[in-house]
Parts: sequence; structure tokens; C-alpha cells
Amino acid sequence: MPISKQSYREAMARLGAAVTVVTTDGPAGLAGFTASAVTSVTDAPPTLLVCANRANDSYPAFKANGVLCVNTLTGGQQAVSAVFAGLTDACMARRFDAGTWHRLSSGAPVLDGAAVAFDCRISQVVEVGTHDVFFCTVEAVEIGAANEGLIYYGRNYHRVPVTIGQR
Amino acid sequence: MPISKQSYREAMARLGAAVTVVTTDGPAGLAGFTASAVTSVTDAPPTLLVCANRANDSYPAFKANGVLCVNTLTGGQQAVSAVFAGLTDACMARRFDAGTWHRLSSGAPVLDGAAVAFDCRISQVVEVGTHDVFFCTVEAVEIGAANEGLIYYGRNYHRVPVTIGQR
Repeated sequence: MPISKQSYREAMARLGAAVTVVTTDGPAGLAGFTASAVTSVTDAPPTLLVCANRANDSYPAFKANGVLCVNTLTGGQQAVSAVFAGLTDACMARRFDAGTWHRLSSGAPVLDGAAVAFDCRISQVVEVGTHDVFFCTVEAVEIGAANEGLIYYGRNYHRVPVTIGQR
Repeated sequence: MPISKQSYREAMARLGAAVTVVTTDGPAGLAGFTASAVTSVTDAPPTLLVCANRANDSYPAFKANGVLCVNTLTGGQQAVSAVFAGLTDACMARRFDAGTWHRLSSGAPVLDGAAVAFDCRISQVVEVGTHDVFFCTVEAVEIGAANEGLIYYGRNYHRVPVTIGQR
């Protein structure tokens, strides 16, 4: 038997994750949402996944456009997280006023100064309960200047230094 | 066209993630590996996912046992990460000497003192390139005493404080 939603949410608060804003653009329009459920799947071929709630108002645009960009926020971009999480009264188009943007390969908005941006094409979709898992082939990346990373853990934001270790 | 493996790895180093040790036990034996590719999928029903390299020596046991436990490490458990990442000469069974363990629902080893442990049954497997994505129904959780979390970012470990915010 699965555990209760409440127990699950309490436990998930202890699994730290990077804060990202996932964006799309195309025939179905511009959209974006704040996400922590993003992870690498494989480097052969370079593939990440994003979990998206089908009830989210941005969902139909992602599904229809078939492209997205995962913008990983820096310590200084915490305010962008709140806007794309729907915690302000900004409508979808106005959310994008929270940053400045450019484009790479897919046409999805890429946040200026992100810690790293992954520009992707959705290659496979798996439905699991309330969510879709978008498996995405990475077509372009952009690594920002040295900046703190932003982690969400224990229902709080945390900044982590950027010093990059050796491979 | 996808980007190169090298570019992908460099970019992925900028996506921070919690450090976990994923374990299993059952008819196919005891096994475990260090993972950062773990994320929540949905709370209805409570489901997380784990990405596992099919070439990993622990993989066959996970696939055959059909159960696993995601043990999220604290700041003080960094040494356990190295052991289960195969960075020592410990064979699979001896890796478990790096901690003390108990069991919850599934029979997979649960690390004493973990920040949080998710005890799971694998409900669906999706193959993507070199990896399997295990979708797992959460059958039990255990939240540890207040401890720092452990984040891997920029190819370094970082400790983040545990203060839990309000829901």
C-alpha cells in the first residue's frame, strides 16, 4: 500500500533539488513553470527528464510545442522562481518580465545569466498519475558565468558556491 | 541534433542534486549504488523515479528484486557516497559496512540516520538509452533527526542546513 500524500510531501521536503524554470514557445504559445523535478537520464544520447503536472496552466503549451528549455537558477535569481511558481499575480506572458531572455536552438526562452540552460526537444512522454514525464533530447546548452547555485531543501532556498571541481 | 557527451556532462555539473544511496535486497541479492538522478513524480499515488545505468554491477539485482530504498544522505554521511559510487575497493556486500541498516516494508536496506528514506516497490520501468528509469510506488518513509542535507553541485559536495520551513 502506498503511504499518504501528507507523509510523502513531508518526506520529499528532505530531498534537496536544484531550482529551475522550464519554458516553452511555439505554435501553442509562450509558457513556463518553476520545477525541481528535473534530472539527467543518460548522456547517450544526452537526455534529461522533467515532470510536469497535467493540471498546470502551462502544461498544454509544452505538450503541443514539443520543445522546452530548462533554466537552472543562480542564487541571485530566487525572485524568478516565485513568479514562475505562480506566487505573484502575473499572468503567463507577464511572468517573463521577471528576467531577460534569448533563444538557442529550440525557440524556447533561455534565461540570461542562468547557472546552466538545457535547450531540448521532447522525445517521449510517459504518464504517471497526475503528471507527465517529458524525456528530452538536449540540443544545446549554455553555461553561465560563475555564480552561486540555488537549491530548495527543507522548504527553504539555499545558495551553494559554484567552485567547479575537476572531472 | 543532440549535443556531445562532453558538453552535456559539463552542463550537468551545474545542476545541483541531493546525494542518495539506492539499495535493494531480495531473491537476486543485496546491492546498492550512489545516485543523484532521483526525483519526485507525483503524490497521487506517491511515486518517485530513479535512473539506473544498465551497465552498473548492481543493476540486475534491482531489476529482479523489484524493490528499492532511496536513502538521502546527510552532511555527515559523505563517506557512504564514495563507497557506493565504487570509489573504494569494497565488493558489493562489503559496501554495506559503511553504515548501519535496518528494514521497513520492502526488505531493502534503510540507512540509519539518513536525512530521509523512501522505501519503494518498482511499478514501471522505461528504457532510455543506456539507462532504465524505475518508477517506484512509495510504501514507507522514514525522516531522520535534524541533520544537514548533502548536495552535489559543481563536482563538489555541499552541506545545506536542515531548518524546515512551513508548508
